[in-house]
Amino acid sequence: MNAEIGEPIDKGIEQRIQNSFHRQGLMAHLGASLHSVRRGLVTIRMPFRPELSQQHGYFHAGGTSAIADSAGGYAAFTMFPDDSSVLTVEFKVNLLNPAQGDALEATGKVVKSGRTLTICQLEVFAVSGHRRSLVAIGQQTLMCMVGRQDAPQKPLN
Amino acid sequence: MNAEIGEPIDKGIEQRIQNSFHRQGLMAHLGASLHSVRRGLVTIRMPFRPELSQQHGYFHAGGTSAIADSAGGYAAFTMFPDDSSVLTVEFKVNLLNPAQGDALEATGKVVKSGRTLTICQLEVFAVSGHRRSLVAIGQQTLMCMVGRQDAPQKPLN
Amino acid sequence: MNAEIGEPIDKGIEQRIQNSFHRQGLMAHLGASLHSVRRGLVTIRMPFRPELSQQHGYFHAGGTSAIADSAGGYAAFTMFPDDSSVLTVEFKVNLLNPAQGDALEATGKVVKSGRTLTICQLEVFAVSGHRRSLVAIGQQTLMCMVGRQDAPQKPLN
Amino acid sequence: MNAEIGEPIDKGIEQRIQNSFHRQGLMAHLGASLHSVRRGLVTIRMPFRPELSQQHGYFHAGGTSAIADSAGGYAAFTMFPDDSSVLTVEFKVNLLNPAQGDALEATGKVVKSGRTLTICQLEVFAVSGHRRSLVAIGQQTLMCMVGRQDAPQKPLN
Repeated sequence: MNAEIGEPIDKGIEQRIQNSFHRQGLMAHLGASLHSVRRGLVTIRMPFRPELSQQHGYFHAGGTSAIADSAGGYAAFTMFPDDSSVLTVEFKVNLLNPAQGDALEATGKVVKSGRTLTICQLEVFAVSGHRRSLVAIGQQTLMCMVGRQDAPQKPLN
Repeated sequence: MNAEIGEPIDKGIEQRIQNSFHRQGLMAHLGASLHSVRRGLVTIRMPFRPELSQQHGYFHAGGTSAIADSAGGYAAFTMFPDDSSVLTVEFKVNLLNPAQGDALEATGKVVKSGRTLTICQLEVFAVSGHRRSLVAIGQQTLMCMVGRQDAPQKPLN
Repeated sequence: MNAEIGEPIDKGIEQRIQNSFHRQGLMAHLGASLHSVRRGLVTIRMPFRPELSQQHGYFHAGGTSAIADSAGGYAAFTMFPDDSSVLTVEFKVNLLNPAQGDALEATGKVVKSGRTLTICQLEVFAVSGHRRSLVAIGQQTLMCMVGRQDAPQKPLN
Repeated sequence: MNAEIGEPIDKGIEQRIQNSFHRQGLMAHLGASLHSVRRGLVTIRMPFRPELSQQHGYFHAGGTSAIADSAGGYAAFTMFPDDSSVLTVEFKVNLLNPAQGDALEATGKVVKSGRTLTICQLEVFAVSGHRRSLVAIGQQTLMCMVGRQDAPQKPLN
């Protein structure tokens, strides 16, 4: 299985990921966008703005975690059956260095894809011009909800 | 030590927490506010809005984690010396139930306060009218940076 | 559901837990025993011996984790259907204080019991005479394997 | 820094790691041995025996975690100053596949080496003849205790 991680995916799956991502109000609110979508490997990019800061002026760990969580979730989702939905069971992040720079890039990578559970490794880099530095690593467990639509069951209000 | 967790704190410390919280651009951007600040025990409240949603219309785990992380950070900070700053080393959250309701309330509670490291337990509840349901639990490690100001070293401009 | 955590369980379930525990070669090898088995709440006790030590002479975190993991696993198992088996998906522990004393007592407590996944909180105390001190806390995700026997499929060897 | 991870270390440091490992009563009790010691990269091997099993006859997650924890601890220790000692702050493991085979091999690898805290990634493989399969991954935070001897302060008993 691991051999296939990182391969291109077909347009239908990519479109499904894009649609789901655009239903995540938080991603738009944080200014995050899908940077790369491959099989079991998804990167989300989030440019710096003061609305994302913690008290020292760096990226807040909450925003760092938000894009890491979504990156891992969509990495898992690329390998799920059509009529399913993805749910984060848990995740853990270590914050290695101050997250400062032009943007953060979070990558989720599938390490184990099971019928029910998928395990991802997460990496977040701070990017400034050509410099990249690792600011966080994580591990995440996701659940495949078969037969559940990846959209609200009824329109939000 | 644990006997004192939850006791009122003096105004100076509360003001320091308030000031730090208001420097966190992300908290304002998410619409979160400090709900309660006691010794080693801080609660942050975040009302629902579509900008906080994931693809099913619930609160996104990233927002849930952001307020849980800040709640634990400030719970630790209430017990730090004056000339110090707080840094999240790592945290882990389990998402127990769909996070939906009028608001989320995240509480960080100090379990062990050491000279260098502080460990917190985190709980996030979804609140709808009088109903409260536990949606996430977490554990967090924080570091006390003695002699480091809790503010940007130079203006962000 | 939480109201019932800690209630006595019927003899059949307790026997099932005892049988499973005794099939865990590691628990016997570490000198650990089931101390208390209640609904969603299990305690395992492990007296100190030099074979359990790390380099400073305290209990090794590996032993601490082993009994915490089994305590959580059996806490979950008390709430599973008859024809099922329990599997640890992941766990995380924070080691708060040096684990030294006459014995360690690890308690696993079910926080959320779902059809597929169960989430436990873990606590480990060091006990010396009448003194108890908290040495580790953890969070754990467990999976219910319905229709799978809780024993080796064929004899070992 | 990362460029140096995996390089050979001088004999003095390797001897210090060996001495410390041999003071860990638990490692001997589990039948574990140091397999490879390089800069920031340590592997521990543990052959299967029934004393290491869980209820299905596989390696118990507690033993898996014990060697993963020690591997990460010693990986960190290779990069610490002479007069220091290593302490596990926390770790998290995901158990990906049933841990069965001739032996387990756990590798700890330093991802970030700070003055006070070091972060490691952990991997555990099950080995059977020439087959290796990944059975667990983890993340770990370690603390450098400067000025503290890596041995009991006074003889045990």
